[in-house]
Amino acid sequence: MRKVQRLAIIGVGLIGGSLARALREADVVGEVVGCGRDSAHLQRAQALGVVDRWMTNPAEAVTGSDLVVIAVPVGAMCDLFKTIRPALAPQAIVTDVGSTKLGVIAAAREAFGKLPASFVPGHPIAGTEQTGVEASFAELFQGRRVILTPTPETDPVATRRVRELWQQTGAQVSEMDPRHHDQVLAATSHLPHVLAYALVDHLAAMDDRTEIFAYAAGGFRDFTRIASSSPEMWRDIACANREALTAVLDGYLQDLQQLREAIAAGDGEAIVTVFRRAKQARDRLIELAGPNAGASA
Amino acid sequence: MRKVQRLAIIGVGLIGGSLARALREADVVGEVVGCGRDSAHLQRAQALGVVDRWMTNPAEAVTGSDLVVIAVPVGAMCDLFKTIRPALAPQAIVTDVGSTKLGVIAAAREAFGKLPASFVPGHPIAGTEQTGVEASFAELFQGRRVILTPTPETDPVATRRVRELWQQTGAQVSEMDPRHHDQVLAATSHLPHVLAYALVDHLAAMDDRTEIFAYAAGGFRDFTRIASSSPEMWRDIACANREALTAVLDGYLQDLQQLREAIAAGDGEAIVTVFRRAKQARDRLIELAGPNAGASA
Repeated sequence: MRKVQRLAIIGVGLIGGSLARALREADVVGEVVGCGRDSAHLQRAQALGVVDRWMTNPAEAVTGSDLVVIAVPVGAMCDLFKTIRPALAPQAIVTDVGSTKLGVIAAAREAFGKLPASFVPGHPIAGTEQTGVEASFAELFQGRRVILTPTPETDPVATRRVRELWQQTGAQVSEMDPRHHDQVLAATSHLPHVLAYALVDHLAAMDDRTEIFAYAAGGFRDFTRIASSSPEMWRDIACANREALTAVLDGYLQDLQQLREAIAAGDGEAIVTVFRRAKQARDRLIELAGPNAGASA
Repeated sequence: MRKVQRLAIIGVGLIGGSLARALREADVVGEVVGCGRDSAHLQRAQALGVVDRWMTNPAEAVTGSDLVVIAVPVGAMCDLFKTIRPALAPQAIVTDVGSTKLGVIAAAREAFGKLPASFVPGHPIAGTEQTGVEASFAELFQGRRVILTPTPETDPVATRRVRELWQQTGAQVSEMDPRHHDQVLAATSHLPHVLAYALVDHLAAMDDRTEIFAYAAGGFRDFTRIASSSPEMWRDIACANREALTAVLDGYLQDLQQLREAIAAGDGEAIVTVFRRAKQARDRLIELAGPNAGASA
């Protein structure tokens, strides 16, 4: 495939850094320019060989780049779009890695006036609870899913190009309507994060928290792993996707309240019915996904 | 230490099987007698070298045993206590591995008329979502916590003996009031299980469940791992510990409802406050426990 001549990564963290590494390893990128707010962090990215050059001015970073990847928290995207708008080359393709898509599309529409044909909204479903360029690695996307949510305004040529690039990282790329993306991710990713954060916070406020945490075993650690994720990133996601998240959370709360009644009443039949259905569904999921479809958020 | 001459394991599953293996490896047990309802399963336990002999009659199994370990679901304990009562040698020590303690103690009191001095209620906080003797291994308890909850009726000599045996498996043994045990475990273990079961069941009932599960990544898999645990075992635990479980679930529901309002309102400050407190608490927990305080429930 045709090489990217200059790739600008705005936000050189776990995702942006891993993408740069993966595209370098696949030898499909010429120069990689990194951009962010923290010079020390960007220096480390350069020292690690993730980027060739770096700068803190996004407009400067996108100047002369033929591919721009926005990997900043979704709450920061609108301002960023506004900043880079005047400096973008007409033929430059812009994509993002945000965990919610309707909000990012709205931000782009606001910043650009109308949605640019060269903007391809995307979301790699990969990550760990780690953050930062130090945690980045070229294999992060191998076997992972990447969802592109092109809009009616998006140029199919741009979408194809972004798809090809993600495929070079070893990812499985699919397309989805942005609203549907947000609903699916609210259920499988955003809701679990909210539940895990709320649980740890609730227990941490209890009188015997020291003892509680001392006796917390592996099940609890697994269950709450995602509560070690970046609070700021997840605040942005929760806010950006609040419609879909609130909807699925309300449904869950209703089910949980019902289960609570069954527990309070000691209704073993009702309890085991829920537990059995859940175990069946999860065991089927694991079977379908394969036992090693490992660490990602 | 003095060897156990004949150990009877009632319920040769993951926990019972692993305990037998560990005590054998530590060379602190003579003969191991296994008991359960399923002959084929017990034959496998014998073939695996976990037990020397087996039988399906619990009264027969405890006859002549100086240590009896009850490793059946907590819902089955009362009947079991009644069955073994006439066959227990006067000096035989009885302990259990149930995940709730007040319920087991009540069952013993009911079955025996009064609590036997030789009964030491216990709970190894170890396990995986796997079940069955095939999953058992001698190292399961290494570095894990075992909580003993002796009652005023319990003979301290019996408690010391059970403590020593668990220490031989590499476990850290501590003592706790049974009611407090049930509260702590409701928070760190029973509540997460209920939340995970309820989540998977809720998503499995959604129209786009196939797509939802297809895009579920590692975060979701970790979060829901405990929903692959035995539904019957967890029904028993939820019923046996319904008082403490309902209390902590109600507190959690209240907090979650509040967080839901913050999300619906897009109140980033309120959201990030919860998320930050949770991340801090969890990161501290991991620091205290060490990164490899691995797989256990």
